[in-house]
Amino acid sequence: MLSISQKKFVNSLKQKKFRTEHNSFIIEGVKMLEELLHSDYEVETIYATSLWINNNSGVDCIEISVKELNSISSLKTPNEVLAVVQQKEVQLIDLPSQLNIALDKIQDPGNFGTIIRTADWFGIQNIICSDNSVDVYNPKVLQATMGSFFRMNIIYTDLSKFLSENKELTVYGALLNGENVYQKELNSKGSILLMGNESKGISEELIPFITDKISIPKFGNAESLNVATATAIFCSEYKRV
Amino acid sequence: MLSISQKKFVNSLKQKKFRTEHNSFIIEGVKMLEELLHSDYEVETIYATSLWINNNSGVDCIEISVKELNSISSLKTPNEVLAVVQQKEVQLIDLPSQLNIALDKIQDPGNFGTIIRTADWFGIQNIICSDNSVDVYNPKVLQATMGSFFRMNIIYTDLSKFLSENKELTVYGALLNGENVYQKELNSKGSILLMGNESKGISEELIPFITDKISIPKFGNAESLNVATATAIFCSEYKRV
Repeated sequence: MLSISQKKFVNSLKQKKFRTEHNSFIIEGVKMLEELLHSDYEVETIYATSLWINNNSGVDCIEISVKELNSISSLKTPNEVLAVVQQKEVQLIDLPSQLNIALDKIQDPGNFGTIIRTADWFGIQNIICSDNSVDVYNPKVLQATMGSFFRMNIIYTDLSKFLSENKELTVYGALLNGENVYQKELNSKGSILLMGNESKGISEELIPFITDKISIPKFGNAESLNVATATAIFCSEYKRV
Repeated sequence: MLSISQKKFVNSLKQKKFRTEHNSFIIEGVKMLEELLHSDYEVETIYATSLWINNNSGVDCIEISVKELNSISSLKTPNEVLAVVQQKEVQLIDLPSQLNIALDKIQDPGNFGTIIRTADWFGIQNIICSDNSVDVYNPKVLQATMGSFFRMNIIYTDLSKFLSENKELTVYGALLNGENVYQKELNSKGSILLMGNESKGISEELIPFITDKISIPKFGNAESLNVATATAIFCSEYKRV
């Protein structure tokens, strides 16, 4: 049974303002809950339908009806269960010994979520976002990560400051006029792949921090690639033998 | 000035049923209109704000207010202009001399649009979709193509029948247990890259048509890659030297 105040609270977490105020966020669906329960994120409350409860005996939760789940879900097709989770302080790991991704003003939740999923596929552990990037706790971002969110260290910071403090790292900047990435020897140790905003690319003030400009060669007529697509191709180029 | 019947007609085209009935579809925004006017698609009506009209003198259109545009737009941020366009019969080109993409039950409009954009970047000309795939004239698909739609030959057909009629082509099937694509010699002439549905992969009945199973090696922990992401990495592998 879902109380009016619970319903109001969960729905408020669809907005960043309230997520920040309560230091909480929402996780939805069977697959995401499975990943959540295997992670070190602290669960506040699980709201689950009888179907989920029957398949997950022993997990502490509040039973709600499918109709009640619909009233708090962000999904087009609500999926058995929703959890309110505590945000946590994230630390970057082993920055100088691997490939890391930096995102400058990424705006589209689907793109960001897809980048997190792709990064997880390629074994990347750290993503550094500029302060004005879309919120990782946005339900659409989380859903697009397909659970990879729980395995990624994601921080928000002033990217100019961050790059100026990490000058020992190679910074590969994705630009339309960069070197052909297929022909370039890439150093995946101690490096950052810097990707720009969907429509404006990399900010002017970050260009001086780029040590190597790289591009994906164009064989046809599209003006550009989607940022999540381009990120995936670069990650693939770093990792392929 | 937008009449009530015009408003009703344009809004009806947001549904596939009416697009098919009227053999029409909607194109929106400055960039898409520019691509449309350079294409061989036949324009039925352009509804434009004074701003667009001032920048596109000589183009036959109906002037409408920003408020009227909002009332017929599918975009979150309507952008100056909307056109109703005639659907056209599309033919595949030079199938046996290049790389083509086949999509089995692709469902997400954003994924499909992104694949069209990526295909255009890599110089691919033909996409063959199974009959039950998402409609290419869906406004979200078209928007995600960023104009590449106008340069792509996209047909819907029974994929089993299509593949059985094109047995001279190499069919690369994207599967989780395929050969490492990084180590495989790929033949981009006379070949088809077959990609499966977002959650179910390639249909059982199509598996026998695959001549070569291929995979993108996994270095981390994500269960799978987004279908548009995987398609992009395969296209990149075909085209890189």
